[in-house]
Amino acid sequence: MSSAFDFAPLLASGLPAAAERFSGLPAYNFTGGHNDPDALPLDRLIDAADAVLRREGRNLATYNLSGGPQGYLPLRQFLVGKLARDAGISCATDEILLTSGSLQAIDLVNGVLLARGDTVIIEQDCYQGSINRLTRLGVDVIGIPLDRDGMRMDALASALEGLARRGIRAKYIYTIPTVQNPTGTILPEDRRAEMLRLAEAHGVPIFEDDCYADLIWDHRRPPALHAMSRSGNVIHIGSFSKSVAPALRVGYIVAPWAILSRMLAIKFDAGSGALEQMVLAEYCAPHFDDHVPVLTRALRAKLDTLMEALGEHFGTAAEFEAPKGGIFLWVKLPDQVDALALYPKALAAGITVNPGPEWSVDKASSRSRIRLCFASPSHDEIRNGIARLAEVCHREFGVPARIANITRE
Amino acid sequence: MSSAFDFAPLLASGLPAAAERFSGLPAYNFTGGHNDPDALPLDRLIDAADAVLRREGRNLATYNLSGGPQGYLPLRQFLVGKLARDAGISCATDEILLTSGSLQAIDLVNGVLLARGDTVIIEQDCYQGSINRLTRLGVDVIGIPLDRDGMRMDALASALEGLARRGIRAKYIYTIPTVQNPTGTILPEDRRAEMLRLAEAHGVPIFEDDCYADLIWDHRRPPALHAMSRSGNVIHIGSFSKSVAPALRVGYIVAPWAILSRMLAIKFDAGSGALEQMVLAEYCAPHFDDHVPVLTRALRAKLDTLMEALGEHFGTAAEFEAPKGGIFLWVKLPDQVDALALYPKALAAGITVNPGPEWSVDKASSRSRIRLCFASPSHDEIRNGIARLAEVCHREFGVPARIANITRE
Repeated sequence: MSSAFDFAPLLASGLPAAAERFSGLPAYNFTGGHNDPDALPLDRLIDAADAVLRREGRNLATYNLSGGPQGYLPLRQFLVGKLARDAGISCATDEILLTSGSLQAIDLVNGVLLARGDTVIIEQDCYQGSINRLTRLGVDVIGIPLDRDGMRMDALASALEGLARRGIRAKYIYTIPTVQNPTGTILPEDRRAEMLRLAEAHGVPIFEDDCYADLIWDHRRPPALHAMSRSGNVIHIGSFSKSVAPALRVGYIVAPWAILSRMLAIKFDAGSGALEQMVLAEYCAPHFDDHVPVLTRALRAKLDTLMEALGEHFGTAAEFEAPKGGIFLWVKLPDQVDALALYPKALAAGITVNPGPEWSVDKASSRSRIRLCFASPSHDEIRNGIARLAEVCHREFGVPARIANITRE
Repeated sequence: MSSAFDFAPLLASGLPAAAERFSGLPAYNFTGGHNDPDALPLDRLIDAADAVLRREGRNLATYNLSGGPQGYLPLRQFLVGKLARDAGISCATDEILLTSGSLQAIDLVNGVLLARGDTVIIEQDCYQGSINRLTRLGVDVIGIPLDRDGMRMDALASALEGLARRGIRAKYIYTIPTVQNPTGTILPEDRRAEMLRLAEAHGVPIFEDDCYADLIWDHRRPPALHAMSRSGNVIHIGSFSKSVAPALRVGYIVAPWAILSRMLAIKFDAGSGALEQMVLAEYCAPHFDDHVPVLTRALRAKLDTLMEALGEHFGTAAEFEAPKGGIFLWVKLPDQVDALALYPKALAAGITVNPGPEWSVDKASSRSRIRLCFASPSHDEIRNGIARLAEVCHREFGVPARIANITRE
């Protein structure tokens, strides 16, 4: 087009840069919440799709399957039982709102509670998608440091007291208490009780993101904060992305109707995708509990491969705590490694990793950290990708100083 | 809970009222873009789901099926061919962005172009979902009156000139040119050319919403504005909600990469539901063209039933133009009928209709109008629902003055 129309003068201010054209995933992809394709329960999902469509498929002609905007009732019924068994949560189907992935759940929670200039409390190292949303919303974020048992309650108490002295009431405490992203920690029950006590004392609700809670190696978890709350001050969200399949985009919110009804009122999308909810409900009711151990065994094996490869190729240059579950490892590299500078160099070698500063509100302490996702790559890809990553690190930053014999294909 | 946590003091300002609990659809539902359940191509959708899942289902373990954020490539390939055949649009797969229904498409267009205080031009009688979004965004809306051939170009010219005199450049002209919602008009090709001429003269892009364009009784339509534009100033959106099934939530945007890449950059949802895109692509490539006439015959028959019922029960009290396609009829009732006051009375009788003022930016001229959607109710429901509606109108407003013999079950 010779005289192409110029949209640039019409753009709203403050937009992010234009997207780049997609050029395929890298050969060694250690980013993204992708799952293990071999652990996907494909045959049973196919059977579920067939059965539910034959029985109820004509309902697809009606928005929300005629069942209202909270989502497919059998999936909410499954969740009522699952959340009671696994997380100790007692809730009714009308306290659940199904969403287009847990990202929409986060957007709805933020949509009813946050305005520019508000203050929220989060874990210092935290899910990038949540941090970026808070940044875009112009919210003041207070990061609470973590240790091996998750968010530190002494630091939380200090932060809440500091805010109280300034007359500020935080809009929420956002936490991923059960397999924290990115640290992989699990907040013990006594800390949960303390968090609830502090939150109630300061009149601050808790926003509990339990997306990874199904993926614990020994399947033992503390009760959800939602389950332990006596005042109903916890908004709980979860997802089927990590336990079944991320491309399905089905998440959920569990909250008292008083606040859930406000979120429902700003869900302007005419409903989330119904077919995916139908297939999940049909699959999960009979099979979810059998599937989870199959998946976690596969994930655990990949984590072992990743930790072995790091040991072999990085030696003591890669420090980490073995997580009790999940799909990622939070790795500390030597101080001379600038993870943000490493990113493009690794990408040029066909490897992607998450630079620590993108997963933390403390850019200094996370400068030499990387998040490595291990669910999607094969065992061979993990081994070869980590070997290559060590080469790149050595070339760019001089560490690891000595790389063990590297086998390459 | 005796001491329930009170979220109210923490809510953001300006929120809509809390949602009501869903209590089921009314017996006679003449609202919503629902489709005809009997015309849903269920067997072939089931076959498509089975085939595509067996072939590519493991890709569901990866966000966006490993194919990038613009959506499932085979569905974009289908659209390239379909849009060329039906609408004259020449575009590449990377000029298409698949969305979670066309509502997300509207949100993305608005997201990159609009800020509070901006001005947009729309059709005076217009899709409620678009009007409501513009209201929430705090945008000044100029409504252009329509006649039997859609938006009036003399009025558009005057509006653009009036804005130019005030030094205002509208951010876009939003139009549903092909089976307009709610009037059912189709903008002829000469008016499309004139709209493009005016838009280009004033440097204003056109936002073309073609959601109903497949549902034309004789399947003859003018080329899309996108197809006729020489400068590339048209953003075109469409949907599978009206042609296949609304609960699937699959829409799309077709636009030059320069502006599409800005929309993609604010699509923060980690991708739209992939299973629905996969099933649609597998189904549409071989079957879409055969399905559309089956669907439109069914819709046309329901429209005939609706118009007959209105003639029988309302006589000359219900004025309307028979639309050339679509799923709704825009009906003028006598001036004494206040459609907003009719709504709750009809609802109490088990009938829902769309009050005109909710589908228009001119509340006076739309005061006695209602939109009646006819795709979802059965023929019997249409007949009985209109009979009941006439009774309610007679009781509340004295019109129709005389109701023909009403048969009821």
